[in-house]
Amino acid sequence: MDYRSMLPWDRDGKKPGMMRYGNRLPYTIFPTLGEGNTPLLELPRLADKLGISSFRMKDEGQNPTGSHKDRFSPLVIARALETDARVLVTASSGNAGLSVTSYAAFAGLDCVVISQENLNKGLQKAIQGTGAKLLLMNQPHERWELMHRFVEEEGYFPVTNYINPPVGSHPCGVQGYKTIAYEIYEQSGNRAPDAVLVPTSRGDLLWGIKEGFDELSRIGLIQRIPRLVAIEPIPRLSEVLVGEDWRKEFTDGHTPLLSIGGNTVAWQAVSALQETEGSAVVVGAEEASAAQEELEQHGLYLELSSATILAAARQLIQKRWIKPEEYVIAVGTSHGWKL
Amino acid sequence: MDYRSMLPWDRDGKKPGMMRYGNRLPYTIFPTLGEGNTPLLELPRLADKLGISSFRMKDEGQNPTGSHKDRFSPLVIARALETDARVLVTASSGNAGLSVTSYAAFAGLDCVVISQENLNKGLQKAIQGTGAKLLLMNQPHERWELMHRFVEEEGYFPVTNYINPPVGSHPCGVQGYKTIAYEIYEQSGNRAPDAVLVPTSRGDLLWGIKEGFDELSRIGLIQRIPRLVAIEPIPRLSEVLVGEDWRKEFTDGHTPLLSIGGNTVAWQAVSALQETEGSAVVVGAEEASAAQEELEQHGLYLELSSATILAAARQLIQKRWIKPEEYVIAVGTSHGWKL
Repeated sequence: MDYRSMLPWDRDGKKPGMMRYGNRLPYTIFPTLGEGNTPLLELPRLADKLGISSFRMKDEGQNPTGSHKDRFSPLVIARALETDARVLVTASSGNAGLSVTSYAAFAGLDCVVISQENLNKGLQKAIQGTGAKLLLMNQPHERWELMHRFVEEEGYFPVTNYINPPVGSHPCGVQGYKTIAYEIYEQSGNRAPDAVLVPTSRGDLLWGIKEGFDELSRIGLIQRIPRLVAIEPIPRLSEVLVGEDWRKEFTDGHTPLLSIGGNTVAWQAVSALQETEGSAVVVGAEEASAAQEELEQHGLYLELSSATILAAARQLIQKRWIKPEEYVIAVGTSHGWKL
Repeated sequence: MDYRSMLPWDRDGKKPGMMRYGNRLPYTIFPTLGEGNTPLLELPRLADKLGISSFRMKDEGQNPTGSHKDRFSPLVIARALETDARVLVTASSGNAGLSVTSYAAFAGLDCVVISQENLNKGLQKAIQGTGAKLLLMNQPHERWELMHRFVEEEGYFPVTNYINPPVGSHPCGVQGYKTIAYEIYEQSGNRAPDAVLVPTSRGDLLWGIKEGFDELSRIGLIQRIPRLVAIEPIPRLSEVLVGEDWRKEFTDGHTPLLSIGGNTVAWQAVSALQETEGSAVVVGAEEASAAQEELEQHGLYLELSSATILAAARQLIQKRWIKPEEYVIAVGTSHGWKL
């Protein structure tokens, strides 16, 4: 989307966090818990181990509720407030649910979260602590069916996707992910990296980052969009990229990588990879677990789904899809505490 | 301390996090996990409930390992690297241990953490995950005795205090807390608040913040140092302020507020309160628990010891020590996940 101005943003940096980019977001003012402006960490010892000149991580775990979803929630809440929504409803594997309910609670709105029975106990407790109603389903597809009912019959405000094939979460919120691209550009000394690795479920985050770099390119600030890489626990996008129908129902094999699980793909994710000459990498649970341990031994405590970044980087370097001299950034989507 | 320049800091804001204030810190370059630059949240709905015009929280839970200790660790690690230390040793109730071991792991240094048997299981796991050795003692005083032995006999680098009466943690690290004062000043539109509420154990944080405001005053940027308030789980500083000997051994009654527990007081804490015409407030476990729930219902998930800020603010407003029109900031020292 294009907003009021072609100016990139508030260059004096006086506005906090995401508000600095307000003129490129659906709302310039929104309820804030201090989201955005996360550090871009230089990880020289891991780069050495990987055999590349530089490896950096955008640490989204340093957001208010500990994940990138905090760039999504304030914009959706702003829309809900503007349209006088009374109750919000969201289907979530955990991080989005926590983030949306926290911002809803902050703004004084009610919220229903529909998740699955395998949701971590700590997340259950934290979501309920905000005052939200938490409903746990047996099967993933039941979440969307129930949500559909809440939206159509009760008039609840839908925060996330609820139709199949999925179209993605509320577009106002997805626009918030563009700020990751803006921040990466600035924190890199006003340039784009060669590749960005993104743990991916249905691809809202992937798409938002893509759109952010697209805008930087249209404004003329960068010449080339980074190749985007989707990291997934089972072959979904990997299959679509070699010809499989994207509308197919995949099987996620009950992966413990809940935040990037799911048996569907959204078209935006396919498009983000194709348009950037990107790729998809499969990282299974065992590989993710080893990566999580290795990251901990370097002082970084990431959620299992997020720890896939290290395993994915290693795979791509081994097959020379990433060259040793390239500038690679991985998005550490969430911290490891929400158990 | 005064460093190379009387200029306040890097005003162009290009350096990330705490490095922006490098010319007022013991080191200008240090291993970084993206600490500092935490948001100063405006909490209008809580301010209404409290009956004051503005209530703001400096959210230190958005640091890399989830607490203010991340402003301390990088500077101590820098000192350890400069002095060719091989092994670090720290006595900690949890947050400092996790922070120091994470930064040590990031920098490739070994670390021993001495804590108590009541340390949360999640923290135990996370500290051990960094590769640090974790030793759990039965009694608090045993921590310092063992640490003393490691320092004197093994030549380990001492990160925290190990003598009684305590003198505080490594001064290089405590200097890092000055940046909280600098950030508060800038985020407040270049002014100081009337009062700052700080959950306090032995008072490293309290002292660092005090010194930061002192410097702002000496530079001429502020006219008056804010009144500092120590929040404690049992009467320690509260007793010292009305005449009790600060070197006394208090009893902390096995408080579940581990991060602000302990049966001793450091002189710096007394001094920080006296010199700023500050105060000390006692918040017990039940009151803290109720405050934690109330904060959650406003979207803020804080550790029990940190949640005391809301109860303390309420006490001070009720006794009119804080006036409704005053500008009050509370330091939310840690997030609530480290269970």
